[in-house]
Amino acid sequence: MKEEKIISLLKRRFKSPKGIVGIGDDCAVLPYSKKEYLLFTTDTILEDVHFKISHISPYYIGYKALAVNISDIAAMGGIPLYAVINLGLPEFNLKLVDAVYRGVKKIACDFDVRIVGGDTVKSGKLFLAVCMMGKVEKKFLVKREGARAGDLIAVTGQIGNAYVSGKHYKFTPRLKEARWIVKNLKPSSMIDISDGLVIDLFRICQASKKGAVIIKDEIPVSSGVKNFYSAITEGEDFELLFTIPSKNKFQDKIPETKTKITIIGEITCRPGIYLKTAQKLKKIKPQGYDHFERNNFGI
Amino acid sequence: MKEEKIISLLKRRFKSPKGIVGIGDDCAVLPYSKKEYLLFTTDTILEDVHFKISHISPYYIGYKALAVNISDIAAMGGIPLYAVINLGLPEFNLKLVDAVYRGVKKIACDFDVRIVGGDTVKSGKLFLAVCMMGKVEKKFLVKREGARAGDLIAVTGQIGNAYVSGKHYKFTPRLKEARWIVKNLKPSSMIDISDGLVIDLFRICQASKKGAVIIKDEIPVSSGVKNFYSAITEGEDFELLFTIPSKNKFQDKIPETKTKITIIGEITCRPGIYLKTAQKLKKIKPQGYDHFERNNFGI
Repeated sequence: MKEEKIISLLKRRFKSPKGIVGIGDDCAVLPYSKKEYLLFTTDTILEDVHFKISHISPYYIGYKALAVNISDIAAMGGIPLYAVINLGLPEFNLKLVDAVYRGVKKIACDFDVRIVGGDTVKSGKLFLAVCMMGKVEKKFLVKREGARAGDLIAVTGQIGNAYVSGKHYKFTPRLKEARWIVKNLKPSSMIDISDGLVIDLFRICQASKKGAVIIKDEIPVSSGVKNFYSAITEGEDFELLFTIPSKNKFQDKIPETKTKITIIGEITCRPGIYLKTAQKLKKIKPQGYDHFERNNFGI
Repeated sequence: MKEEKIISLLKRRFKSPKGIVGIGDDCAVLPYSKKEYLLFTTDTILEDVHFKISHISPYYIGYKALAVNISDIAAMGGIPLYAVINLGLPEFNLKLVDAVYRGVKKIACDFDVRIVGGDTVKSGKLFLAVCMMGKVEKKFLVKREGARAGDLIAVTGQIGNAYVSGKHYKFTPRLKEARWIVKNLKPSSMIDISDGLVIDLFRICQASKKGAVIIKDEIPVSSGVKNFYSAITEGEDFELLFTIPSKNKFQDKIPETKTKITIIGEITCRPGIYLKTAQKLKKIKPQGYDHFERNNFGI
């Protein structure tokens, strides 16, 4: 994938010193206090790439811009604290700005995130580049690396149809779920599904130097899904994908939120992602949403 | 100014809790350790607004994106630590990405900033939204508010011609200077001149609930300046503008860097910015670079 090429260029150019997780996870992990790390993440949402002005109200554009960053903090097991927002605005339109920031405020209040700064620039297309800071207790930090052969692969909620259903605008970041998971299931790795189940599982495998087998019939696809392959590659589900050492106790429902957890496969020594059906075991390409590939799904 | 309207909308919507400096200064100031605050800032540079692809090499686009954020950290008296970068890219072009990040790396190395993450999105125009984290000793923190009547107004280096000379791409952020100033001159307020001497002085006055008189003949304009008024309003100088209680000792040159410091006026009780010439005292509009005004200077 082309995006991966950019990421590896960056990884090579900006090597992280010892004790710091830099480029290549959902958040950077930085020194903070004796018992906690600081988390630092950023995500941009851009008109005609992540949303269409004609499809959705500005309120949900603001909402989503914060939600995707909260989802990144959740994926490391942490808690969001502060955010700054870069707003690219096609024209001076206070009503639009107000609506975008009403959406930002709603989710910021819900998740106790303080908006502490930002920058507004004139831009041909509307965009929001949000940067978020959070923290995580050292004992609860979970990264993409850490999955071991034999670990179970689990996913929250349902996969697929995020674009068609509008879930990708209005989703509730899985923060409560992530906090419950790190405290109770002790996952060996975790990621949020932003670019698609397959590519995000591939990212866990790559970071952990492992492979995976997922079982087609076990994958909890949304009820409206027509094409199974699209469901596992189109992305924007913002569910949690994680691995659990098989010796750990397991529970298939998160008590507080009633969110379902489904075991969908197993980490393997053999590299590559394999899809298991009743008939066969088929290697699948690590495909998902890529900004620079032609066959993009999405809007 | 229209940009100010957006900022006041944000200030109203996102009030900061006690002990936190939020929207409205160069950086957010957040709790960190017993003796230090965390600084958090963000700035975007965008094709055809802050640079033209045909004017400048991608190297300096990367360089500038980091430099403007380092300048914000410097303006609070702090030290930069970490940055994440959102890159908006018109097409998949690894050579371009590499050149941009070579510029980023150069200045990151010079100023000891760790690049710890980022996001790459497809975008019609090239942009870099950088978010930077830094720290400042509590005793050295300096904000926009804090100027008192009678304080001297001072500026580093020279003002004007930043666009024509190319200084706005290649400037060295005044970090060493800022650190020397907070340690030795004990300024009562400080800002970096990004949108123009007049508007940025107005921001100090507004935050401090004061006014100012600046003396035309004292303002150190660059040698190539043809229009005095443009020089003090066009912006992108990235010099430091600060106020010093008149009882503090003063030195007009920073020993390590040989940077000149010039006293250009005085803070007053009377609101408004006044320009003093040999003939008269004239009130001037708080004008500067505004993304949403028609009479923009710059490229």
